[in-house]
Amino acid sequence: MSKTLVMKFGGTSVGSLERIENAARRVIKRLQEGYRVVVVSSAMAGETDRLINLAKQIDRFPSEREVDMLISTGEQQAIALFALTLNKLGVPAVSLCGWQVPIITDKVHTKARIKKIGIQRIKNLLDEGYTVVVAGFQGVSEDWEITTLGRGGSDLSAVALAYALNCDCEIYTDVPGVFTADPRIVAKPRKIPYISYEEMLEMASLGAKVMQARSIEFAMRYGVRIHVRSSFSEEEGTWIVPEEEVMEKVEVRAITLDTKESRFTVVRVPDRPGIAYSIFKALGDAHIVVDMIVQNVSHQGYTDLSFTVNKADADKAEEIVRRVAKEIGAEGVERDDHVAKVSVVGIGMKSSYGTAAKMFEVLYRNNINIMAISTSEIKISCLIEEKYGELAVRELHSAFIEEGEKVQVINS
Amino acid sequence: MSKTLVMKFGGTSVGSLERIENAARRVIKRLQEGYRVVVVSSAMAGETDRLINLAKQIDRFPSEREVDMLISTGEQQAIALFALTLNKLGVPAVSLCGWQVPIITDKVHTKARIKKIGIQRIKNLLDEGYTVVVAGFQGVSEDWEITTLGRGGSDLSAVALAYALNCDCEIYTDVPGVFTADPRIVAKPRKIPYISYEEMLEMASLGAKVMQARSIEFAMRYGVRIHVRSSFSEEEGTWIVPEEEVMEKVEVRAITLDTKESRFTVVRVPDRPGIAYSIFKALGDAHIVVDMIVQNVSHQGYTDLSFTVNKADADKAEEIVRRVAKEIGAEGVERDDHVAKVSVVGIGMKSSYGTAAKMFEVLYRNNINIMAISTSEIKISCLIEEKYGELAVRELHSAFIEEGEKVQVINS
Repeated sequence: MSKTLVMKFGGTSVGSLERIENAARRVIKRLQEGYRVVVVSSAMAGETDRLINLAKQIDRFPSEREVDMLISTGEQQAIALFALTLNKLGVPAVSLCGWQVPIITDKVHTKARIKKIGIQRIKNLLDEGYTVVVAGFQGVSEDWEITTLGRGGSDLSAVALAYALNCDCEIYTDVPGVFTADPRIVAKPRKIPYISYEEMLEMASLGAKVMQARSIEFAMRYGVRIHVRSSFSEEEGTWIVPEEEVMEKVEVRAITLDTKESRFTVVRVPDRPGIAYSIFKALGDAHIVVDMIVQNVSHQGYTDLSFTVNKADADKAEEIVRRVAKEIGAEGVERDDHVAKVSVVGIGMKSSYGTAAKMFEVLYRNNINIMAISTSEIKISCLIEEKYGELAVRELHSAFIEEGEKVQVINS
Repeated sequence: MSKTLVMKFGGTSVGSLERIENAARRVIKRLQEGYRVVVVSSAMAGETDRLINLAKQIDRFPSEREVDMLISTGEQQAIALFALTLNKLGVPAVSLCGWQVPIITDKVHTKARIKKIGIQRIKNLLDEGYTVVVAGFQGVSEDWEITTLGRGGSDLSAVALAYALNCDCEIYTDVPGVFTADPRIVAKPRKIPYISYEEMLEMASLGAKVMQARSIEFAMRYGVRIHVRSSFSEEEGTWIVPEEEVMEKVEVRAITLDTKESRFTVVRVPDRPGIAYSIFKALGDAHIVVDMIVQNVSHQGYTDLSFTVNKADADKAEEIVRRVAKEIGAEGVERDDHVAKVSVVGIGMKSSYGTAAKMFEVLYRNNINIMAISTSEIKISCLIEEKYGELAVRELHSAFIEEGEKVQVINS
């Protein structure tokens, strides 16, 4: 029996009928190489935003259950068009919605988690010679409600299906792979041939738009090998694989910039136990992910508490935080939408010293003030003013990546 | 327990967010009157056509299974937006796709028939105080394939749900009811307050766009009372009810015009038994409905066979008929897309004489040639050249309906 392959196409890769045809031809190439293919498709570029915008025109905080009902149609349209295109090109193909696979999730609308995948129907179709085109991003709860997996959730659909079918996963996108920095910011970024799950995960969490963080987490947990590549060229992209498969362990693999967060500061919070809890509990209950948290040293029994959340959640967060701030007797809440998080990421950091110091030095030399810092074993992030974001990326790329490539010639 | 009502809104009634809000306010009015409401919504005006057009850009004869997958998204979007609008206006509402109800159909894609409706989920939601918004037009087969019920199938969804819930069915549309003729053709048509299923059925089959024929058939079989009315005004519309509830039995209730058919003529068919069968069997197998059939008297062992089909099926029909014509040794196939079927409809015809003669006379007086005639107990149809269609309607309306209203004053 020939090998199976999951091929996932993002919104730009299926953004028009011509692009769908281009994607279909990539699929046919794989079929000719002997693979059995499961396609996972996103909605056509722009469609999900268009639908969300409609919902928001009706209600600023629309019912998430109905939002899922609405936006899941984007992928459903794309898979039907994809299957029709494959048919037209002579390939027997069948499209399946999430509930038809089924991809069973929990009940958290707009951010559901996959619980189970039934693969019998897909396997039967593959056995019968069909190429199967599955709607990304969507699933179904056990009580037959349509759910979606969160922004970029089609990646998760693809990786989960690759796991379920025990095969590799190709992610086709509009860039030729993962780069050391955003090519729109840095003049000569390098394409990374192999990157570990951990590094990719940090990069995704830090605003690199290549893949959704949860899907990399999932791939890491289950060891799914991912190949991120361009749907518009044949060149090899970037393999996301276990750390031991990555040959070269550099100190800093990449520089990222994230301008999708808003910073909130709760001003003059009474410094009592349970105060932070009451704020972050309320945000957690609303399924809002809080990122960088900074609490200043207490001053006369009061402190300032800052944190960042995704801009998409900022309106909702503001409502909640203002309510809680009143309840706990804080002086007020400040919101800043003009912040940027710049980060350096690399597995090699684990075994090298002074990465943080070098980063702070670069920012300092460029007169960039640091508002907050967060670190992990393999990354360091600094929150700065948004207007310095691109400058910071360029300077850090130059210091960590371009310098690192210079071979020192010793005269002796 | 309060009474239940099905309220169905057509594409123009949900054609924009403003119109959806207008429709939602009609629902709220009914809720305030004490009804429990099940809304059935079509896709936003134009959306189904847009999607079918996309499919046809890929493939002139797209897979009907994939077409159903594609076009069912139109209603799904509309119900989510409808439910969000009701929510925004303070009404708890939940939308349901066909497969979630479930509305179970056979497997004939794009023209499926309803086999079963599960009403427990809807009943539970109504009991919990929700208004339920169901996607019209779509169902699900027993092997979990999305099906659609054919053009105008949302009417069928509504009537079938009204039957299942044992309640009346309001059909909201962009006209204030059923008229004696198309107001765009006849200057002063009359709104019909009550019309029998049989008459309405004939009118629908004859091109009156008010309601889909199958849904009236269904209503007739199960005695569902239907009220067709405008979503833009409060005035009473037209009740479609059993014959015994219609007070006034006029000879001719209405005049209709249908320009949605194409005529085919198979030229010089050898006049042998089984020839008509081989043509119409092939069309039937492709689920193409044939309407008017005319076979001329045989001439030296050959005959011409004409029939009409819906223009939507004409391309497909042409392929089939050309193939069969070759097999049976006919001389050729002619296709005419410029025909019109003009009809007079009325229960009273059953008990009056000379309706046909009067119709032919009106056409004759206007020099309009009749290409084919078909009749039933309560209607007479003539196929004529398309360019005379509107003239014929006006003249017939004047002769049968306007004349009929004149009170004869007898001088005695």
